[in-house]
Amino acid sequence: MGSSSGDSASVPDYDGSKVSARPETSLLVLNAPEPPPPWQELSGRVRRAVLAAGNRPSSSTKWFVSALLGLFPILRWGRHYDRKSFRRDLMAGLTLASLGIPQSIGYANLAKLDPQYGLYSSFVPPLIYAVMGTSRDIAIGPVAVVSLLLSSLTQKLVDPYTHPEAYRSLVLTATFFAGIFQASFGFFRLGFVVDFLSHATIVGFTGGAAIVIGLQQLKGLLGINHFTNNTDVVSVIKAVWFAVHQPWNPDNFLIGCSFLLLILIVRSIGLRKRKLFWLAAITPLLSVVLSTLLVYLTRADKHGVKIIRQVKEGLNPSSVKQIQLTGPFIGETAKIGLICAIIALTEAFAVGRSFASVRGYQLDGNKEMVAMGFMNIAGSLSSCYVATGSFSRTAVNVSAGCETTVSNMVMAITVFVSLLLLMKLLYYTPVAILASIILSALPGLIDIKEACRIWRVDKMDFLACLGAFLGVLFGSVEIGLLTAVIISFAKIIICALGHKIEMLGRIQGTDIFYSMRQYPSAVETPNLLILRIDSPFLNFMNANSVKERVLARITGGCDAAKERAGEMTRFVVLDMSNVSHIDTSGIPAVEEMHRKLTSDGVQLAIANPGWQVIHKMKLAGLVDVIGAEWIFLTVSEAVEAAGGCGNEEDSSLSG
Amino acid sequence: MGSSSGDSASVPDYDGSKVSARPETSLLVLNAPEPPPPWQELSGRVRRAVLAAGNRPSSSTKWFVSALLGLFPILRWGRHYDRKSFRRDLMAGLTLASLGIPQSIGYANLAKLDPQYGLYSSFVPPLIYAVMGTSRDIAIGPVAVVSLLLSSLTQKLVDPYTHPEAYRSLVLTATFFAGIFQASFGFFRLGFVVDFLSHATIVGFTGGAAIVIGLQQLKGLLGINHFTNNTDVVSVIKAVWFAVHQPWNPDNFLIGCSFLLLILIVRSIGLRKRKLFWLAAITPLLSVVLSTLLVYLTRADKHGVKIIRQVKEGLNPSSVKQIQLTGPFIGETAKIGLICAIIALTEAFAVGRSFASVRGYQLDGNKEMVAMGFMNIAGSLSSCYVATGSFSRTAVNVSAGCETTVSNMVMAITVFVSLLLLMKLLYYTPVAILASIILSALPGLIDIKEACRIWRVDKMDFLACLGAFLGVLFGSVEIGLLTAVIISFAKIIICALGHKIEMLGRIQGTDIFYSMRQYPSAVETPNLLILRIDSPFLNFMNANSVKERVLARITGGCDAAKERAGEMTRFVVLDMSNVSHIDTSGIPAVEEMHRKLTSDGVQLAIANPGWQVIHKMKLAGLVDVIGAEWIFLTVSEAVEAAGGCGNEEDSSLSG
Repeated sequence: MGSSSGDSASVPDYDGSKVSARPETSLLVLNAPEPPPPWQELSGRVRRAVLAAGNRPSSSTKWFVSALLGLFPILRWGRHYDRKSFRRDLMAGLTLASLGIPQSIGYANLAKLDPQYGLYSSFVPPLIYAVMGTSRDIAIGPVAVVSLLLSSLTQKLVDPYTHPEAYRSLVLTATFFAGIFQASFGFFRLGFVVDFLSHATIVGFTGGAAIVIGLQQLKGLLGINHFTNNTDVVSVIKAVWFAVHQPWNPDNFLIGCSFLLLILIVRSIGLRKRKLFWLAAITPLLSVVLSTLLVYLTRADKHGVKIIRQVKEGLNPSSVKQIQLTGPFIGETAKIGLICAIIALTEAFAVGRSFASVRGYQLDGNKEMVAMGFMNIAGSLSSCYVATGSFSRTAVNVSAGCETTVSNMVMAITVFVSLLLLMKLLYYTPVAILASIILSALPGLIDIKEACRIWRVDKMDFLACLGAFLGVLFGSVEIGLLTAVIISFAKIIICALGHKIEMLGRIQGTDIFYSMRQYPSAVETPNLLILRIDSPFLNFMNANSVKERVLARITGGCDAAKERAGEMTRFVVLDMSNVSHIDTSGIPAVEEMHRKLTSDGVQLAIANPGWQVIHKMKLAGLVDVIGAEWIFLTVSEAVEAAGGCGNEEDSSLSG
Repeated sequence: MGSSSGDSASVPDYDGSKVSARPETSLLVLNAPEPPPPWQELSGRVRRAVLAAGNRPSSSTKWFVSALLGLFPILRWGRHYDRKSFRRDLMAGLTLASLGIPQSIGYANLAKLDPQYGLYSSFVPPLIYAVMGTSRDIAIGPVAVVSLLLSSLTQKLVDPYTHPEAYRSLVLTATFFAGIFQASFGFFRLGFVVDFLSHATIVGFTGGAAIVIGLQQLKGLLGINHFTNNTDVVSVIKAVWFAVHQPWNPDNFLIGCSFLLLILIVRSIGLRKRKLFWLAAITPLLSVVLSTLLVYLTRADKHGVKIIRQVKEGLNPSSVKQIQLTGPFIGETAKIGLICAIIALTEAFAVGRSFASVRGYQLDGNKEMVAMGFMNIAGSLSSCYVATGSFSRTAVNVSAGCETTVSNMVMAITVFVSLLLLMKLLYYTPVAILASIILSALPGLIDIKEACRIWRVDKMDFLACLGAFLGVLFGSVEIGLLTAVIISFAKIIICALGHKIEMLGRIQGTDIFYSMRQYPSAVETPNLLILRIDSPFLNFMNANSVKERVLARITGGCDAAKERAGEMTRFVVLDMSNVSHIDTSGIPAVEEMHRKLTSDGVQLAIANPGWQVIHKMKLAGLVDVIGAEWIFLTVSEAVEAAGGCGNEEDSSLSG
């Protein structure tokens, strides 16, 4: 055949003279060119990453323009932006702001920061994203899960109540790191880090986090002074139990619950009548206004209703000096930044992809990561904490008819105005109303329907989902994530090494040999055992066990073999088409298998070994041990050869 | 077709009416029976484990007899044991003892125990193994790597020099745990735990450990009083540097080196003249005797030569009371026991399997583990520390012509005699001679040739080997093992997710479609793109990337596609024969791929999905989205269908 392995000097060439009387195509297996070394893919990835930005343009000016257009998509679509689109974006942006402002204050509370930090984070990051982002729908701002993550991880280092300054500085540093990580993921095209969390674990983790966040709101809802710093269910219920057995003021609870009820009722109306969705979107803001007025008029704060009190007016102050790149917590802060970066990206991608898919456009994952990274770096320098794409607000944004990221700009400007003018009005806002706004956003995070679907389709995935859920609920956010990642990876390893050995049979009327269990109509070939190794690996973890199973099949260990105990198996075809990786433990296993079979008078043939596999078998000299003439391109060729050989052997034995 | 999916009520059946004009065999894919659930394999394993011992005999007496024969193989082969075999075993046992006694004392020193504990461990465990083991060749006793492991891990808990009693008690408890773990691995057929360490990592780890052990011997060789407790190269060299800059006595070094030289020279003679191997085997004992005499006669101990001094005479004392199953270190001790259990089994299996393979018999892994477990449990109750099969002594045992485990008994009895009578003679034995005996055993543990072979065959395996080696050398024994395990598993995950997309072409003259890179003679099909997903998984880690790569191939991202930019791809066949697992992240990816392709006017066909894959695609409704008529058994069927369809489309477009 035409192919030669010229580039592999140490590997012998196999020609027809050695292996006569077999189909020519079989030679193809042995004379395949050398496979690319494992690091080639990696270097290719890096090369693509470096060269990708500019698409190799002719001049440096062109390169600069194309890089600029790549980095700032607004320059592309901004040229065609018209008044009609702007009107729609304006409406969407205002609706978004009415939901975003109260939510941001609530999430700042969840992150254990002063209320204005939530608003800061709804001002700078959306502006940056508006010029750099590729999604038209995502609404940027602080989100519940990341706020919880940030506070639960950072408060282990510094107590937010006794050292608010130091705590804030750590949060901002973590945000800075998160931005750096996100931008680097984008530049180096490391999108796969976001894929570390499977869909199932995200469903479980988000559900668990939602319940944890809800439980944290009991502090505000019940007006409790001394609450636990732990986030697990047991600690929180204990703390609540302890608090309600002290004398407590039910007013906070009443205000919170009545407004929560209001928000939920209006939302359910909005869900039924699509035209009224804006009513649902502005109810949180209305609730804030109403409850603040109520407290102000009745002076309820004198009777035990907790109010926000200290709110700083004015625009984002610079926080460059609060970023601490030295000090004892630098490592921990970087870790928190990494975790938040990944979780934030995961949420943003889930939101962005689902809406992009509905609206029929593709999200550029790498550009998204760069945009998110820059917005968080800029945010961390201007007193913002980690912002990302939010589920609830993106849905409102889309429902309100947003066309481009301009809706984010409109929202940011609205937040800017309220930061300048309206902050004083928040003085009398009851804390309980923030809790009820957060609580109202939680049902959307608990996706029982999806969990049921996961259970139906994939039990192992459901286990990962459940592990993440229970881990967050009864351990901590970290434990939940760790459980999820471990279960996901354990699943990969278990599946990869779940070396089933399948007996193959001929699909009637064809030359194809498929699993007899999957295709019960496939028929066995007499005097011949065709086994397929159903594992991508033949390595240290499973080589011995595969060897033992194959030998057990032949010496009568399995039922199918027992059925035809009368017959003698003379020939074993090992279909290795599924084995794509063999290592230095796998090769001796095949060698021993061959030795044992040969000593029992059984001939071993190998069909369709993977590219790396046949290469390594040649390198290790295994091909010469088995005999080049017993390696085939397809199972049917091996079976044909066996037919000829089997008869010869029979005659030689009887003769 | 004959097959029906009667046991899967929720899954629709597909018949010919829906999917006309396609080969009948294609229906087989859709109507395959439901695959066994993932836990079935596990439960099957447990069932086999429980039922296996007795082979389901008819009466309880028979069951008892067969269980007894299974547990004590000596009852089987003992009946045919004759005088000729005994004579050979006697000679082998005596040779073994002459090597084993000095080695055991040396290894006890390495384990930071008194010399007699090494001899204790060469008495009880070999006796137990002799009646329970299935290998005829393995020589049982303490070994270098496990001794190092035990001392380096245990001395972190208790200092062996200031609290020798407590230290010894922990070592014995760890030995007890090791025995329990080993026996349970055997009973529950968990042989795979031994496979956690790949061949490559064992080569690297053993090599690194040998160097570390060698460095530890500098203490005895140089007669250093204050040595470091760390095992890494840097600490040891620092300690030695510090010691040799103090006034020191060169006599220890002279004695050690001269006898080391003697042992090595005699061994090299033994290697050249196979008949003289026994000379090499008894040289260590001779060296002990000679050096002891030398010291006694010259009273060199008065001039700075360190001698053993305290040696307790008499048989193994009971150590039942020293096993501490309560207390603060119980968890740590169990961990040490587990690590030692696995490493000891790994070494024993490596030794046993290689000699069994040479001598043409099969080792029963589960029985071996039970035997090793019992021997270590019994050992821990009689003042022995972890024993296992030793490389160097097994080789001597085989060379000396052992026939059965009786040679182990002979050795044990010889040790027993010397424990009773000869211990006093060890009083004047110089410590340096123990160091030189240990040093002389090390070259066999450093297998540079094998490391080169690993480098040649598998670069990734070599990385694991190097990681283990450097980890042991510059970190600690634990770090080395951990590095090795992490690299090995990372390799599995990287390989499992290294989702290459291969373009397939037709092997000329056949209906087979194989990778065009592996088989350059394969030819492309016009108007048609056949892509194979070369990953066993389509899951959260790679689904997005696979989707993007497939789409990039079609929209002209790759060079091959650019070459035929003039042509329009109308039809994509996705060969999923290598994909055996899909999860709840993989299914949406295929769905999105299909949606995008359809919107571009490209038809997607799927060929040969794995059993679990097609089942989950049915469950998730993906089959209905793609259309049952676009799912095929083989690539060639899909290509045929595409040919028909492509022409139709062409005519409809041109018409």
